[in-house]
Amino acid sequence: MKATALAHSNTALIKYLGKKDEQLIIPMNNSISITIDALSTITTVEFSPQYTEDVFILNDKKATGQAYQRVVKHLDLLRQEAQRKLKAKVVSKNNFPTAMGLASSASGFAALTVAACAALGLKKTPQELSMLSRQGSGSSCRSIFGGFVEWVKDDGTGKSYAIQLADEDWWDLRDIVLILEEKEQRQYSTREAMRLSMKTSPFFAARLAATESNLDKMRRAIKKRDFTLLGTVAEHDCLLMHAVALTSNPWQLFWTSATVKMMKLVPQLREKGLPCYFTIDSGANMHLLTLPEHQESILAELEKHHFIKKIVCARLAGGATIISDHLF
Amino acid sequence: MKATALAHSNTALIKYLGKKDEQLIIPMNNSISITIDALSTITTVEFSPQYTEDVFILNDKKATGQAYQRVVKHLDLLRQEAQRKLKAKVVSKNNFPTAMGLASSASGFAALTVAACAALGLKKTPQELSMLSRQGSGSSCRSIFGGFVEWVKDDGTGKSYAIQLADEDWWDLRDIVLILEEKEQRQYSTREAMRLSMKTSPFFAARLAATESNLDKMRRAIKKRDFTLLGTVAEHDCLLMHAVALTSNPWQLFWTSATVKMMKLVPQLREKGLPCYFTIDSGANMHLLTLPEHQESILAELEKHHFIKKIVCARLAGGATIISDHLF
Repeated sequence: MKATALAHSNTALIKYLGKKDEQLIIPMNNSISITIDALSTITTVEFSPQYTEDVFILNDKKATGQAYQRVVKHLDLLRQEAQRKLKAKVVSKNNFPTAMGLASSASGFAALTVAACAALGLKKTPQELSMLSRQGSGSSCRSIFGGFVEWVKDDGTGKSYAIQLADEDWWDLRDIVLILEEKEQRQYSTREAMRLSMKTSPFFAARLAATESNLDKMRRAIKKRDFTLLGTVAEHDCLLMHAVALTSNPWQLFWTSATVKMMKLVPQLREKGLPCYFTIDSGANMHLLTLPEHQESILAELEKHHFIKKIVCARLAGGATIISDHLF
Repeated sequence: MKATALAHSNTALIKYLGKKDEQLIIPMNNSISITIDALSTITTVEFSPQYTEDVFILNDKKATGQAYQRVVKHLDLLRQEAQRKLKAKVVSKNNFPTAMGLASSASGFAALTVAACAALGLKKTPQELSMLSRQGSGSSCRSIFGGFVEWVKDDGTGKSYAIQLADEDWWDLRDIVLILEEKEQRQYSTREAMRLSMKTSPFFAARLAATESNLDKMRRAIKKRDFTLLGTVAEHDCLLMHAVALTSNPWQLFWTSATVKMMKLVPQLREKGLPCYFTIDSGANMHLLTLPEHQESILAELEKHHFIKKIVCARLAGGATIISDHLF
């Protein structure tokens, strides 16, 4: 009744924005991401009659409030699957800061789902794990898989889950994660921000339409290992999302002055012959996508800019998996 | 054959974005602006057989290239109206920096049109002057009038010109102009930026649709002197325009880090009980709209922020007019 899982965060190249079903977390559009090695969560789950209530310890602190309630709700879903009523202890560690637009809930819920299913003795396929994880945190359904992943909004039978487009060995993409702000800057959670965008931006529908053609281009870019296409489309899709947020009511600006400095630097790096493209989630930090042969030169350029607080170099990672070492 | 005109810049509350007719400068949507006193142009035009070619002196420098060609083209239009062929000397002075998103071409072409028509002895109504000025620089057609001005894309007979919604005495609005960048930061001229936006942004059509309802709200805000409505709609319309630019191909970001700092400060000022709203043209600088009773407190807050390079306090101004003092 005890298991530990490791899951990695993912960087969305085509963003998830807006829910068709708030309860089940069915998205308005397909999204595509890469699973990256540098940002990960390890989670140990134990179900036992000795526990009188669910306990969730995140980064050595007992979680309360909304963070705790989301985990309990997800455990309830998995307990229902297993027809068990035992309470659980969940201990989870991220190797990177939470709630900074670095998708900590993606690796978190993927690890929780995989560990809890194993602890409950549930035999689930990756697709089933993806569907379960999705209900805890939408984008976590993509972290079940490694490499290049697409979250399908509806497979034709009403089911929504992620599929692997290509594994982590298909193409050695690099994701240079630039921590530009270490403190929380956001006014709204990703979830609330999305709801506002969908309800109030006059650009939401146009973004949805534009995303269809971006999805086609992104699948083609991955298939043909066309970095210019992948980067151009990722940058455009990112800006579509931020433009939708900016035109919501109230308007939302996730960028800080450091983000804007960095955005202006990226085309300059390209002009210097260093292929790289950015994507930014609902936060101030940036992912800079590049190829292995340019990574060192890009890092040398980035070192000149002291507004960058921290740099984490990531490669593609595998999917969520059971590991043998427990956290408690 | 010599006349001098004074014209003021205008701050668009509902932006002009995209041309239906590139040659005649017919806009895709109506726009609404306030004519403001602090940013002005004085232009003296003299037509004389002594001149063998048109000369244009802007801020004490002989203009060449595109700036010169635009003035010659406009003089040709006015010469054709007057059935005259005389060459002209044009001397023009702005009291503020050009090409920084401060609409220098608006006051510039309004002053040029009014001075040149007078020098040529053309008797034109303000509406006719507005139609002529429009063909030199679109938004200059609004600077022919003072106070609150709407540029009508088509009056039903195919004519496009500005009309006055209310004069400068109707409502004592204040426009605190924040110079955040003194050097040119832009990659494209306003004209090129607009063309790119219209051709390539997937949000252009949605922006056009959203603008119709914003125009209604803005007219109502002016009529009822409803500052909250005016400010909220101006801010939203500004963000619609910038979101369209961001989602163009290539993407365009007019803001610098100082702009973003200032954007984040404005809602904080409102939370402190200081009503103010921003609007930003295709540049890094900002117009902060407020009411007279809050201006001093807002200025005291702004003084704390050293990233603001210069502050110019503007009130509403009258329309373009002939003055007696010549520049040469």
